[in-house]
Amino acid sequence: MEPVLHQLGQRLIRCAPRTLICRKYTHGNGNGADHPSTGSSHTTPVLLVSRLYQPANLREVGQESRQAGEMTCKSQRLMQQAGLIHPSNPGCYYYLPATVRAMEKLVRLIDQEMQGIGGQKLDMPSLCSAELWRSSERWDLMGKELFRLQDRHGVDYCLGPTHEEAVTTLVAHQASLSYRQLPILLYQITRKFRDEPKPRFGLLRGREFYMKDMYSFDVSEEAARHTYDSVCQAYGRLFSRLGLRCLRVQADAGNIGGTLSHEFQLPADIGEDRLLVCGGCSFAANEETLAPGETDCPRCPAGPLAESKGIEVGHTFYLGTKYSRVFNATFSNHQNRPVVSEMGCYGLGVTRILAAAVEVMSTEEAIRWPGLLAPYQVCVVPPKKGSKGSEEGAAQTEGLVHALQGGLPRLRGEVVLDDRTQMTIGRRLKDAVRLGYPYVVVVGQGAQEETPRFEVICQQTDETMFLSKDQLVDLLGRVETV
Amino acid sequence: MEPVLHQLGQRLIRCAPRTLICRKYTHGNGNGADHPSTGSSHTTPVLLVSRLYQPANLREVGQESRQAGEMTCKSQRLMQQAGLIHPSNPGCYYYLPATVRAMEKLVRLIDQEMQGIGGQKLDMPSLCSAELWRSSERWDLMGKELFRLQDRHGVDYCLGPTHEEAVTTLVAHQASLSYRQLPILLYQITRKFRDEPKPRFGLLRGREFYMKDMYSFDVSEEAARHTYDSVCQAYGRLFSRLGLRCLRVQADAGNIGGTLSHEFQLPADIGEDRLLVCGGCSFAANEETLAPGETDCPRCPAGPLAESKGIEVGHTFYLGTKYSRVFNATFSNHQNRPVVSEMGCYGLGVTRILAAAVEVMSTEEAIRWPGLLAPYQVCVVPPKKGSKGSEEGAAQTEGLVHALQGGLPRLRGEVVLDDRTQMTIGRRLKDAVRLGYPYVVVVGQGAQEETPRFEVICQQTDETMFLSKDQLVDLLGRVETV
Repeated sequence: MEPVLHQLGQRLIRCAPRTLICRKYTHGNGNGADHPSTGSSHTTPVLLVSRLYQPANLREVGQESRQAGEMTCKSQRLMQQAGLIHPSNPGCYYYLPATVRAMEKLVRLIDQEMQGIGGQKLDMPSLCSAELWRSSERWDLMGKELFRLQDRHGVDYCLGPTHEEAVTTLVAHQASLSYRQLPILLYQITRKFRDEPKPRFGLLRGREFYMKDMYSFDVSEEAARHTYDSVCQAYGRLFSRLGLRCLRVQADAGNIGGTLSHEFQLPADIGEDRLLVCGGCSFAANEETLAPGETDCPRCPAGPLAESKGIEVGHTFYLGTKYSRVFNATFSNHQNRPVVSEMGCYGLGVTRILAAAVEVMSTEEAIRWPGLLAPYQVCVVPPKKGSKGSEEGAAQTEGLVHALQGGLPRLRGEVVLDDRTQMTIGRRLKDAVRLGYPYVVVVGQGAQEETPRFEVICQQTDETMFLSKDQLVDLLGRVETV
Repeated sequence: MEPVLHQLGQRLIRCAPRTLICRKYTHGNGNGADHPSTGSSHTTPVLLVSRLYQPANLREVGQESRQAGEMTCKSQRLMQQAGLIHPSNPGCYYYLPATVRAMEKLVRLIDQEMQGIGGQKLDMPSLCSAELWRSSERWDLMGKELFRLQDRHGVDYCLGPTHEEAVTTLVAHQASLSYRQLPILLYQITRKFRDEPKPRFGLLRGREFYMKDMYSFDVSEEAARHTYDSVCQAYGRLFSRLGLRCLRVQADAGNIGGTLSHEFQLPADIGEDRLLVCGGCSFAANEETLAPGETDCPRCPAGPLAESKGIEVGHTFYLGTKYSRVFNATFSNHQNRPVVSEMGCYGLGVTRILAAAVEVMSTEEAIRWPGLLAPYQVCVVPPKKGSKGSEEGAAQTEGLVHALQGGLPRLRGEVVLDDRTQMTIGRRLKDAVRLGYPYVVVVGQGAQEETPRFEVICQQTDETMFLSKDQLVDLLGRVETV
């Protein structure tokens, strides 16, 4: 089979036939496999846009609208058009490679924040036995929202939408749990299932989705409320690192149960929740928790609450002993007597956060990501093949990419090269703007000046700068990644 | 709530109440959250054994056997006793935190090797529509092995055991795929479902498990065979990095289909596959692919094949156009005419590799991991509280841990401190040996000599050394991590 040839300007660059990366631009021994930790065989690939499986690249213009089906909101439309997601069954999506990258970044952030407050990550089965769910009475209570099935022996299961039953029975099975070992905070980031009556809004309301669910076990209500607060603070830090404005509102506990509950809401017009927010204090509530006609803040004299709509991205519950009593999850107290644990549970919609971020940050035509979640940080656009100065431009591109790869370990795997040099810079730039790379570097006319300058478009701030190579390396060296 | 107190020798170390880590040992500003890439707020925690959710630590002696149920093989027994897995429904396990760590490392290794040959990671729905599976005729063919369910509208689905149908229809939906864009290699690492008639051997044969499944699309049979070989080579590199001896044997394609297939087998007594291996050349085959009574090597004159048993950890298939024809997955050739793609598919049993590695590397009493997969690399064991020299030992421990944390970024999060100082060194050492930390560092009598020496047990090689702090830092600085 022929090697794939990538042309940059007049320069012909011969690349490995079945990789995404151009060896010309690798830094290290180029043996393909990356061993980031060993330091011994260190390859820093440059990914080529023409090879990325992001169907926007594969599709003819005009094809998008036919493919997309019914687009119910901006994030769904933008994500489908950009080749980030592709519809499967109702409420089920393929997460395409760029989305997987964004999600892996979000998972790392969540891991950091959850482990920062003592969370330990486990992974529980999706198949949950009916017996377990009957014990908590949720088998009947959940109605049609549960996906139910039988195995080959006729035993009933559901696909877990949450795992209170599963985690409580796990902890209950551990003998001799001492009060000294509490609190225990266990969490997982796994695919969840919910047979929504009306799946819509792309990843915002699906039937399969990724959720972070954490469960806490404490010695007393006081301790459990302390844990509850520390999780809420961790959620606050997470959204702050993402640059997302998030409201914590008082919420209804629904069929999860418990006596204290908050939702974390991103204000957005398409939000399905109606919120009432006080202008005078930090009070905010889901409308469903207030008495009909209650319009004044119950906490301060500021007067009427303002209405807003929100996308729920997180939910916290203080559960008390609702589940621990049923499954007998106890610990030994100071007197070595068994006491039922006080529990909390805490969800974050992982795929929903991705879509909600795109929803609130993007324009109608162009995706914008929280900087930390962008699938790739930098896109380099070299000149059109055969254009004036394209040969020098290709050489400049090469030098630039070497400088970024060699000098900035944090940008490992974060730089893509738009090698579709049969297209004009303008047309590729339009794609780059639409896809929302935080930094787009154009190797244009300025690169052929005596002191070469690169055009840098910072899409997060909408600034355009003309920088020398050193200035550019300095700028990109300050990019935060996770 | 009282802060949790951790005593090391006579020294009282006050730790944050609800974290796993002891602030005394953190290096950096200790704000809880880790931001590894920013460099700005860099915390390196030391994890405390007493706080790890690894139920072996929580359980009374003698409890293990009662909890464990029927133990059908060594890896299952060791993994349950060590608090790595906990049984749920038949063939379904909780993966406890140490297992999640090992699995995350394995996933990183697999990502490196798959991306090294051009693989791009996506994530496909678990719910697969019956319609799709009827198109390939596998809806009926799979019989009782498929978990089947209906949604609230009565539509039939199965839980995907593999995703040939799903990925082929995805690729088929992309308009204008050019021959220049092939090969495309798409993979995912997700939970799979298979209603095994006899789930057993712990993670080796379960009903829910993690699998890496990759699918390739090529322009011709020749190109597809080239891709096939490059995947096999990547599998070879993976097992070689894990230090696992793996046989590639000719295999039956089963109900996946196709004309060329290999299994990757770890030789093991409990293996369910019977293999025949030539001593004279590289020929090896699953017994089911040979004619009954065929005992001589078909490739060389070396004579009779030797029998062996193996655990299948990987499987590769050249599929031809079996699925691409059905779903019309085509590309445009040089003449701009549509041609059906040539496909391959390639599986790795992710959770199965974890258990198989434990199965083949462990002794009857002690877990041994491939070094790269060990949940934690180093366990430090300080003296028993109140023992002779325990105060100096605690100070030595502190200095040592600081040196490891400060000097060895690769060991971030890889060092645990066995703070259960109410127990003798001997008893904790026994646990450490059983759990299989590659390096156990004992702060014993030698630490109080004029030139303090630490006892270092290298469990991978069964060596014991007495090293100064500098020598120890030097040794551990060479530990490979992923």
